[in-house]
Amino acid sequence: MAKIAFIGLGNMGGPMAANLLKAGHSVSVFDLNPTAVESLKAQGAGSGDTAQAIAADADFVVSMLPAGKHVRGLYLGTDTAKGLIEVVKAGCLLIDCSTIDAQSARAVAEAAAAKGLEFIDAPVSGGTAGAAAGTLTFICGGTDAAFEKARTVLANMGVNIFHAGGPGAGQVAKICNNMLLSVLMVGTSEALSLGIDHGLDPKVLSDIMKVSSGGNWTLEKYNPCPGVMDNVPSSKGYQGGFMVDLMVKDLGLSQEAALGSQSSTPMGALARSLYVSHARAGNGSRDFSSIFEHFAKGDKA
Amino acid sequence: MAKIAFIGLGNMGGPMAANLLKAGHSVSVFDLNPTAVESLKAQGAGSGDTAQAIAADADFVVSMLPAGKHVRGLYLGTDTAKGLIEVVKAGCLLIDCSTIDAQSARAVAEAAAAKGLEFIDAPVSGGTAGAAAGTLTFICGGTDAAFEKARTVLANMGVNIFHAGGPGAGQVAKICNNMLLSVLMVGTSEALSLGIDHGLDPKVLSDIMKVSSGGNWTLEKYNPCPGVMDNVPSSKGYQGGFMVDLMVKDLGLSQEAALGSQSSTPMGALARSLYVSHARAGNGSRDFSSIFEHFAKGDKA
Repeated sequence: MAKIAFIGLGNMGGPMAANLLKAGHSVSVFDLNPTAVESLKAQGAGSGDTAQAIAADADFVVSMLPAGKHVRGLYLGTDTAKGLIEVVKAGCLLIDCSTIDAQSARAVAEAAAAKGLEFIDAPVSGGTAGAAAGTLTFICGGTDAAFEKARTVLANMGVNIFHAGGPGAGQVAKICNNMLLSVLMVGTSEALSLGIDHGLDPKVLSDIMKVSSGGNWTLEKYNPCPGVMDNVPSSKGYQGGFMVDLMVKDLGLSQEAALGSQSSTPMGALARSLYVSHARAGNGSRDFSSIFEHFAKGDKA
Repeated sequence: MAKIAFIGLGNMGGPMAANLLKAGHSVSVFDLNPTAVESLKAQGAGSGDTAQAIAADADFVVSMLPAGKHVRGLYLGTDTAKGLIEVVKAGCLLIDCSTIDAQSARAVAEAAAAKGLEFIDAPVSGGTAGAAAGTLTFICGGTDAAFEKARTVLANMGVNIFHAGGPGAGQVAKICNNMLLSVLMVGTSEALSLGIDHGLDPKVLSDIMKVSSGGNWTLEKYNPCPGVMDNVPSSKGYQGGFMVDLMVKDLGLSQEAALGSQSSTPMGALARSLYVSHARAGNGSRDFSSIFEHFAKGDKA
């Protein structure tokens, strides 16, 4: 069992750290929110006054933070704190599970490599339910050796662990996937709405498209039309699941990436505009399948 | 075994009629192209000078025509010819397998009903390969009784036979599916291109998205990036498969339907614009997955 420093105990990080404890690791935690720290201490975690303090003798650092600037600050340092790459012991593997821009991930990986350290970008999907159940998906970027080592820890928090390529590739693959997911969700919502507007039963239409060439993850697992599937956000007032605000964040990252590489992503750009409008209409904390209401008759927007 | 009048022996209709003959039905055929008629006669079909002549004593009429105006002309009549609804015997079931606008399908169904006849709209998917192999998918609109009767004949030409709802519902479900398919294809193409532009291997990225929330039919069966899958059009110079011109036709029908019902389909509208541009750039007779080239570096457009 390893000594793990876990930094960032939000809705995702908290249950992820708890699963590392359950697996028998020696886990020390840090978060600016003392309540989150106390909750993990009650489950057996150690703690410290700073991220630097708990990272100093760790075998692994695992971080789960909101954005690229936080990740750069943590690993590369700020005006008031040393970066973890100056603090950790030789051989400590740095694993960042945040969803951030690929450029930040690559910058941290390069700075770590200059110190002889390995850094893995390992953004997750699966939401808070997956974090609690230990069934997350990790999409990793980094060297083969670092990936194999990271996998031993990630396997305690997730089920599917992918190696997308070198440093930053985990972030790129995740935003490609989530950009595509947003396109599937909007496309499915408008196709179902068009059918409903012409008198079709959305359940019958879903069943047909699911096994035809329109088949996709949203029809299979996450139908956006209320009443078609049980136990999905659309049948629970669009509560739970994956928030519109988080999809807006990921679509922003995808468009930043597209600008950086001068790539053309017209569907991704359109999906971002639709989700930004949907968030501004007051739906930011609802599940992202609520975009269906944007197309359905009786839309409150 | 039934007496069937088959009208429209194009790339799809020819092999479909041949499969009805193989199933043991008594099939008479009509097409304006004498070569197509001769080919079916060599396989055992009867023929006649007009569609009306072969339909007069048929138990079933099956038609496979290019557009709504041809279907309306055939069944409702023209300046120079009686409509089949005035010619066929009582109890003859009218099955139109063309992909046309739902309004035309409903108009023919209503006119048929006024004469005591049943009409089924049964557009297909599966392409010329599916037509030859007898593995087409039929998506039907019509009454329950007519659907059950039509199924006995359609099963000789296809594998999946869906009942989408009342008259016109088959056409609506098909254009909803194909609109969604176009969105999946474009969205997948731009997601893969974004990943490639950031150094990812398209095969690795495809494998990750396929089993994640970006999973969809195009990743599973029809990857648009050359070299990722064998035996798909993208690995054969985008030959074969489903032509861009046909996708443009279906997207036009979906946008006509959206105008008719005042539905909002921004992704479908964008997909139509992209496919129209792609066709105008000279790609009309290539497979629809060639839209990938619109996003990839080295695009010839």
